[in-house]
Amino acid sequence: MQENKALPLQLEHYFDRLWPICRSITGEGLRESLRMLREILPLEIHEVTTGKQVFDWTIPSEWNIQDAYILSPDGRRIAEFKKNNLHVVNYSIPVNKKVTWEELEKHLHHIPEIPNAIPYITSYYAAKWGFCISHEEWLTLPREGEYTVVIDSSLQEGVLNWGECVLPGETEEEVLFSTYLCHPSMANNELSGPLATAFLYQQLAALPKRRLTYRFLFAPETIGVIAFLHERGEHLKKHLTAGYVLTCCGDSGQMTYKRSKHRHSAADRAAEHILKHSGKPHRIIEFAVGGSDERQYCSPGFNLPVGSLMRTPYQQYREYHTSLDNKELISFQALSEIIHTYTAICQVLEANQLFVNQIPFCEPQLGKRGLYPSSVDPVFNRSELHRLLHFLSFTDGTKDLIDIAEWRNESALLYDDIIRKCSNAGLI
Amino acid sequence: MQENKALPLQLEHYFDRLWPICRSITGEGLRESLRMLREILPLEIHEVTTGKQVFDWTIPSEWNIQDAYILSPDGRRIAEFKKNNLHVVNYSIPVNKKVTWEELEKHLHHIPEIPNAIPYITSYYAAKWGFCISHEEWLTLPREGEYTVVIDSSLQEGVLNWGECVLPGETEEEVLFSTYLCHPSMANNELSGPLATAFLYQQLAALPKRRLTYRFLFAPETIGVIAFLHERGEHLKKHLTAGYVLTCCGDSGQMTYKRSKHRHSAADRAAEHILKHSGKPHRIIEFAVGGSDERQYCSPGFNLPVGSLMRTPYQQYREYHTSLDNKELISFQALSEIIHTYTAICQVLEANQLFVNQIPFCEPQLGKRGLYPSSVDPVFNRSELHRLLHFLSFTDGTKDLIDIAEWRNESALLYDDIIRKCSNAGLI
Amino acid sequence: MQENKALPLQLEHYFDRLWPICRSITGEGLRESLRMLREILPLEIHEVTTGKQVFDWTIPSEWNIQDAYILSPDGRRIAEFKKNNLHVVNYSIPVNKKVTWEELEKHLHHIPEIPNAIPYITSYYAAKWGFCISHEEWLTLPREGEYTVVIDSSLQEGVLNWGECVLPGETEEEVLFSTYLCHPSMANNELSGPLATAFLYQQLAALPKRRLTYRFLFAPETIGVIAFLHERGEHLKKHLTAGYVLTCCGDSGQMTYKRSKHRHSAADRAAEHILKHSGKPHRIIEFAVGGSDERQYCSPGFNLPVGSLMRTPYQQYREYHTSLDNKELISFQALSEIIHTYTAICQVLEANQLFVNQIPFCEPQLGKRGLYPSSVDPVFNRSELHRLLHFLSFTDGTKDLIDIAEWRNESALLYDDIIRKCSNAGLI
Repeated sequence: MQENKALPLQLEHYFDRLWPICRSITGEGLRESLRMLREILPLEIHEVTTGKQVFDWTIPSEWNIQDAYILSPDGRRIAEFKKNNLHVVNYSIPVNKKVTWEELEKHLHHIPEIPNAIPYITSYYAAKWGFCISHEEWLTLPREGEYTVVIDSSLQEGVLNWGECVLPGETEEEVLFSTYLCHPSMANNELSGPLATAFLYQQLAALPKRRLTYRFLFAPETIGVIAFLHERGEHLKKHLTAGYVLTCCGDSGQMTYKRSKHRHSAADRAAEHILKHSGKPHRIIEFAVGGSDERQYCSPGFNLPVGSLMRTPYQQYREYHTSLDNKELISFQALSEIIHTYTAICQVLEANQLFVNQIPFCEPQLGKRGLYPSSVDPVFNRSELHRLLHFLSFTDGTKDLIDIAEWRNESALLYDDIIRKCSNAGLI
Repeated sequence: MQENKALPLQLEHYFDRLWPICRSITGEGLRESLRMLREILPLEIHEVTTGKQVFDWTIPSEWNIQDAYILSPDGRRIAEFKKNNLHVVNYSIPVNKKVTWEELEKHLHHIPEIPNAIPYITSYYAAKWGFCISHEEWLTLPREGEYTVVIDSSLQEGVLNWGECVLPGETEEEVLFSTYLCHPSMANNELSGPLATAFLYQQLAALPKRRLTYRFLFAPETIGVIAFLHERGEHLKKHLTAGYVLTCCGDSGQMTYKRSKHRHSAADRAAEHILKHSGKPHRIIEFAVGGSDERQYCSPGFNLPVGSLMRTPYQQYREYHTSLDNKELISFQALSEIIHTYTAICQVLEANQLFVNQIPFCEPQLGKRGLYPSSVDPVFNRSELHRLLHFLSFTDGTKDLIDIAEWRNESALLYDDIIRKCSNAGLI
Repeated sequence: MQENKALPLQLEHYFDRLWPICRSITGEGLRESLRMLREILPLEIHEVTTGKQVFDWTIPSEWNIQDAYILSPDGRRIAEFKKNNLHVVNYSIPVNKKVTWEELEKHLHHIPEIPNAIPYITSYYAAKWGFCISHEEWLTLPREGEYTVVIDSSLQEGVLNWGECVLPGETEEEVLFSTYLCHPSMANNELSGPLATAFLYQQLAALPKRRLTYRFLFAPETIGVIAFLHERGEHLKKHLTAGYVLTCCGDSGQMTYKRSKHRHSAADRAAEHILKHSGKPHRIIEFAVGGSDERQYCSPGFNLPVGSLMRTPYQQYREYHTSLDNKELISFQALSEIIHTYTAICQVLEANQLFVNQIPFCEPQLGKRGLYPSSVDPVFNRSELHRLLHFLSFTDGTKDLIDIAEWRNESALLYDDIIRKCSNAGLI
């Protein structure tokens, strides 16, 4: 498939629009982001009401926030939510009172090791309030006098939302792309994930035909995916061939594929096959719980074939979960590349069938089918002929296309033409 | 088994007699070669008539040739079949006419990269004519004037032949040695193959006893083996334990074993075991379709355990399929060595059974059977005793002799004496 | 489990008392040694009478010895049994006669390569007599004149003994510790084995609770274990989870684990897991018959999961089976360490169960169970939380604790606390 050269610019356009929104696991910021993504792909917006039991979890109250700041004794207005939505601990309860430094200090988060970064902190399931500031700013605050803290937020009965859409194919076999949407203004983790997922939809929708059905999910991390699995889990257990969690896609690090717990699922085989034959440096890592929504997909009751193709994973880069994870950290070219890599993975998943040679006893006579050069001389380039003979020799119904291509240590995508010719000649 | 020191001279004698014959996939040259080989082993000569359907293929017309040459405008007689039978494209239709250089050129084969070599070209299934000359000679030919081309060949209803013989053993389990016989005057590919196969018969016929039955096949490549499998395929599916294609046996390169598609069949295990413990450098390569008749044996409908022990494989040496693949390229000593290696492989196949220790609970008391040294002191050489105890410990009916020997990283042929002793003592 | 610092002294105390006793595969020396070990663990002493058939073997006559020596023509009294019980070939028939040098020489054992060592020689199943002396002494003996040889031994109907005790646990699943007791005064091979086994009993008896049942065996090598297996073999086939042969435990070499023939039995997995995570250099070797009683346990009829954790194995150290294998060769600290290593192996065997996560669909909500930190910030040390989530993610009933810990390349013993917490919270 042709590379879409306009992609980086399109990605940047939506990045800039999604960036300022204050998202959380519930609330208006999440819904606004989902509505904006509907310009790219036809998402249905689902909702689950506060208090609903989903497996071991309960949907929390809906959180919304208008404003937040601190007034310092020396008259400054600091930690302003309207300047950076990371300043308030996500899911803070409302507060409006005067406090001493000693009390305030217990509610202030800062990182001495990264003095210019505002940390990203949440408290979804414990009713707390707090502010996040850079260590540099923290050093300037008076240790005496009266502070005023204001968080104009609300926690009320409401809903948790996710966005979902299905791109149908000829069969019910499904591929799932799951990304999370619940972080306020951060770039690699997380906007790179929803942006890649949305534009991947467009790439796949443009394929001339699809054997597989594709499902796209934009949900709040953890609780959103748990709610989604509560509804779709049994369906996925029946139909899911491969799934991927998209996150940390936009930095300039090499690609990293994190395997499903199964290790050799179709998801793993297709992704690793594409990376291996990409000629680019990359890493394969094993499933581990220090991660994202693959934790839910690969939990013992589901154990779905879900991996994750990223660039530099969460927690492995210094700017992770801070205000430094911003537009400067990422590259829309890098993000575009990972979308094309996911597209290639889908092409392998599409092609990776068990073919059966219909003339299994000895080789078919290719000459009479116009598939053999009419004379063989010593300088004849045998590579295409050998690939065809190889394909016919190994299509015994026990090896899929990845197996067949790997035997020759080459990409399964090289077999498109051969499969078409063999199919036309009635050989498979 | 003793090395047969006379072998190189015998091989050379038959090489010199088989060399000048113009063989093809059918015709008198093939039959003459088979009749000559009957001096070495009792071949039955089989025939299949032109037009017969064998799987996806049809037996072609029989080709015979008396003479061929070109008269050049400057009065020279060139590309003379009687000087070198490679000069005519094998299976050329008859021709006798005057042609311009422009027309002739389309029918001339030469190799600029190897200027002194006459290439070997065939056109079995497309009705064509052509000549092969060295690039050096091609440069001397006038680009103007009238050429006369003469090929005195015939394509008529007839037969395709193969030679086959069976050396019976105590059981119906079979080992197949398959070699092809259809190339005109070339040494490594192909005369080394039929010569090795024929004399291997003599080595195996000289064994004091044989548990296994051995089948030897001399057939035209591809179509001959397809015709053979049409007749013997079902039998081989039932009885074949191991098979080998013999070709490219005579050059001075290291031995190369090409595995069956199964990779760990008895054929593969025995051959690799012997090579590993030979102490000589060698290579193991995987099954690939760029090869010879293993393509038919390992086709999906049969998937027989057939590998190939060679020296330098087809297409991996520069002289391949040219007039430079001649007596100078090969060594009758090297050819003799590969025959002895195949003999050793057969000895492993003969010995490689599942033995069952009849005294399985704890070790048998060897002393009362005269199998234990009467006192054990610190300098006693325990190696023979340990091999015996090892053999008894591992003959649990799940490990064959190769497994047992490999556990100690040693040759299965070292166990002859132990097996005899244990058998005599009723221990197995 | 706490290291027992008093252990080296206790080991030395019993070493000194067991050392002078002349043991053999039968007789009073063996019984005296077993009675002494009863001070450490509650051994039951079993007996089998001379002539009894045990599998392929017959219990031999009981051997006892009072004295032995040689009088030399130059008036010296040499090879005195009372000075070193290795001087007499173990199981020598009685003799009291005058002999020439020529006759005596046939009955003298010495090692030219280790001139100051008295070799250890036995002749259990051939009625012989003999003496063992150092090569240095052998050189001083007159080659002429009359020698007097005296061996005051007896071979009579009697019994073969073994000592056995069972330390019960909550289940019938058993772990066997087998050590041999039949060598006269030698330290590494063999006193280190019985000493380690006896004190290992005390370590395991001190555990607050035991899921597994432990069996301890002290038997003469080979014939003793064959007699034991004749009685307990069927029981062990049903109940044995893991077993170990204890020998060569006291030298200062690195630890060596010799696998069971099965290679990946619970015995092998637990021992290799502990060694791998010990951080100490060690070796893993495969089962081989050059060994000890694992030969009987792993014979084809039983094929029990029995390995052996040693230091420097039999035959791999120069002093083996000579008078130089003495107290100087071993270290009670080293012996103590191996006891602690065996204890750790047992703790892994105790812990190594298949747990099943009771909340398998998605992750359990840890927060409401007090198992999750209330807020997550960038510098939070996630390692304990991740280990807990990892444990819950992998307890799907197909992976045991060793599998789960190895996935993170860490010791299974780190999971004690997590297992307790999950169990208390009803999560497993």
